[in-house]
Amino acid sequence: MEINTDAQKIEEILTRSVDTIYPNKEKFEELLKSGKQLRIYMGIDATADYIHLGHSTNYIMLKRLHNLGHKIIVLIGDFTAMIGDPSDKTSARVQLTKEQVQENLKTFKEQIGKILNFEDTENPIEFRFNSEWLEKLTFKDAVELASHFTVQRMLERDNFEKRIAENKPLYVHEFFYPLMQGYDSVALDADVEIGGTDQTFNMLAGRTLLKQYKNKEKIVVAGTLLENPITGEKLMSKSLGTGIGLNETPNEMFGKVMALPDEVIIQCFIDCTYLKMDEIEKITQQMKEGTNPRDFKLQLAVELVKMYHGENEAQKAKEYFINTFSKKQTPDEIIELKPTENNIVAVLLEAGFVDSSSDARRSIEQGGVKVNEQKIDSFDYEVDVGDVVQKGKRFFVKIV
Amino acid sequence: MEINTDAQKIEEILTRSVDTIYPNKEKFEELLKSGKQLRIYMGIDATADYIHLGHSTNYIMLKRLHNLGHKIIVLIGDFTAMIGDPSDKTSARVQLTKEQVQENLKTFKEQIGKILNFEDTENPIEFRFNSEWLEKLTFKDAVELASHFTVQRMLERDNFEKRIAENKPLYVHEFFYPLMQGYDSVALDADVEIGGTDQTFNMLAGRTLLKQYKNKEKIVVAGTLLENPITGEKLMSKSLGTGIGLNETPNEMFGKVMALPDEVIIQCFIDCTYLKMDEIEKITQQMKEGTNPRDFKLQLAVELVKMYHGENEAQKAKEYFINTFSKKQTPDEIIELKPTENNIVAVLLEAGFVDSSSDARRSIEQGGVKVNEQKIDSFDYEVDVGDVVQKGKRFFVKIV
Repeated sequence: MEINTDAQKIEEILTRSVDTIYPNKEKFEELLKSGKQLRIYMGIDATADYIHLGHSTNYIMLKRLHNLGHKIIVLIGDFTAMIGDPSDKTSARVQLTKEQVQENLKTFKEQIGKILNFEDTENPIEFRFNSEWLEKLTFKDAVELASHFTVQRMLERDNFEKRIAENKPLYVHEFFYPLMQGYDSVALDADVEIGGTDQTFNMLAGRTLLKQYKNKEKIVVAGTLLENPITGEKLMSKSLGTGIGLNETPNEMFGKVMALPDEVIIQCFIDCTYLKMDEIEKITQQMKEGTNPRDFKLQLAVELVKMYHGENEAQKAKEYFINTFSKKQTPDEIIELKPTENNIVAVLLEAGFVDSSSDARRSIEQGGVKVNEQKIDSFDYEVDVGDVVQKGKRFFVKIV
Repeated sequence: MEINTDAQKIEEILTRSVDTIYPNKEKFEELLKSGKQLRIYMGIDATADYIHLGHSTNYIMLKRLHNLGHKIIVLIGDFTAMIGDPSDKTSARVQLTKEQVQENLKTFKEQIGKILNFEDTENPIEFRFNSEWLEKLTFKDAVELASHFTVQRMLERDNFEKRIAENKPLYVHEFFYPLMQGYDSVALDADVEIGGTDQTFNMLAGRTLLKQYKNKEKIVVAGTLLENPITGEKLMSKSLGTGIGLNETPNEMFGKVMALPDEVIIQCFIDCTYLKMDEIEKITQQMKEGTNPRDFKLQLAVELVKMYHGENEAQKAKEYFINTFSKKQTPDEIIELKPTENNIVAVLLEAGFVDSSSDARRSIEQGGVKVNEQKIDSFDYEVDVGDVVQKGKRFFVKIV
């Protein structure tokens, strides 16, 4: 494989959406310029059924590295998902069953495939599951892994420290998570691991193990997290069930982007789109000079929907948004629908408000569906001509 | 199996050499009086090649329970020996190889067999190895086991707390030890576990697990440790390599008992002999009234050598002790030996100063062997008639 060592492209990889590189930026730069094909991976646990924009940042990094010719490995933590990463929480995570994990996994590849090209045959992207090696480990292997870490080092983890300080139980098995994620690096014989800053501790555990087991120095790239720069709040969290999923419908995605606070627009452009940095710089400048942030938010929403649903859907979603939410939701101006069936579930599907019948039923169950401003609680409800069907706060359709 | 529920015998079991019973003495008493056959075990790690008097205390307890008709299990920690119990140390233990453990195991059964009757066919004593189940555990099982304990609880262990306070490294794998010992209880489906007080934490871990896995309440009997009541010093420690081994020669054992400080005589009678408590009470009384403790130490030495080598050897060892060490080591009065070979190694063996040729060579290497008050440093040294051969401080023989 011919490795591209274009200095500008390397510079973008070394800086865009990057928080910290271990041991340092120079070491990674040297490797990228060496012309050697590197084995680079990012792991994700199958603890929910969607990938969100926060993850997309890292997959975009991987895409840039794939474009340079490096070997990319998408690792699915199907084994680790059963344990639960205590990283971004201050309580022990619920352990998932194998079945729950399998269910969550179903559409992962398809979602990630919207960013990474799994069809590339010249330099195929590996798609791996960590159950492949972690299931084979014995109790003795676990002891061996653990012997490379002190309890003191484990307790230095921010969230562990916090739990201890707050007298909240910290379970011994939670120490196993960094060991497992660390062992992934060994099993994959990785040169580089990419992840969010919340994964730094786990990724560095892998650096320690790779050094011990193979005397190899793994590069760790800790990418920026999508956070509100004012409140410090995390915008996307799989474990909290928040964020914008890559599998959302164009209208949902568009609406959610428009609901983001103005202060995160620039970060979203940098982390989640392919827009060039100089163009993003121009937007920053224009906002400073007083242009309404809403205009750029619309541009961001179009960019994002385009990435995951194509240009056509992006324009339709924009129109839809302007016709409904943006025009203060006056029912007179809402889109009209002549449904083929009158059943409420079918109508929600045809309107494009939901992805599936079960999604529709869930919305009804949660009280999120109204007809003429009255909540619907039966899946068998039949609509009539003239009815206004509403899902959530933003989606309206008039039956004609 | 007919279970003996003799109240006096039960009372001795509940009190003699017992420090604490968990959850309480009454619960154990109730079980012992129920007439039900109990599954009772004690585990020992094969981390050294000898069993010492400190262990004998627990095996004597097991013998008393075996005499009542209960099912006794002698558990050998061949798997745990490879990990190392951090119990009685303030630094991480060296992990042993499988070969080292096998070597240490060779004579274990024989040594324990001097106390417990492995020949009993009516109520056979089980002899088990924990590799049987611990080797089969997976990483996932380890996670499951660990999920029943908090880090906080682990850190409450005396010696862990101490290591943290002293900024000494505490390794994560050391947390695994209590989990493994605890799982032994589950695998053996034990009703009762017996061990020294230094094992309390590990034994209670097993109590927790048995409750979780089988909803069974295991009794834990923490036996007293052989300690100097004045200095608090532990008299026997396998991991420190000190103490009096059950496999020592009659003369060695006798000499070592005589070297014990006076203040531990009574405790040794209670913990290591079958002497009745009222007789021990009488000895205590006589010592208070001024009888020379040396007389009782001689009695203790005779009792102990008798237990492991028989009455005849005990008397011979007593005579030997009196003829050498006790009579201020005057070479004129020492025992005479007409060796069949003149080689120093052979002479040491024939004199009964060592157990094996390698033992003899080790003594020579360590500078512990003298001929006519000159240190010997060659294994090929030949003795002559009239020579006085000396091993250590107490063993002399005159070549005739």
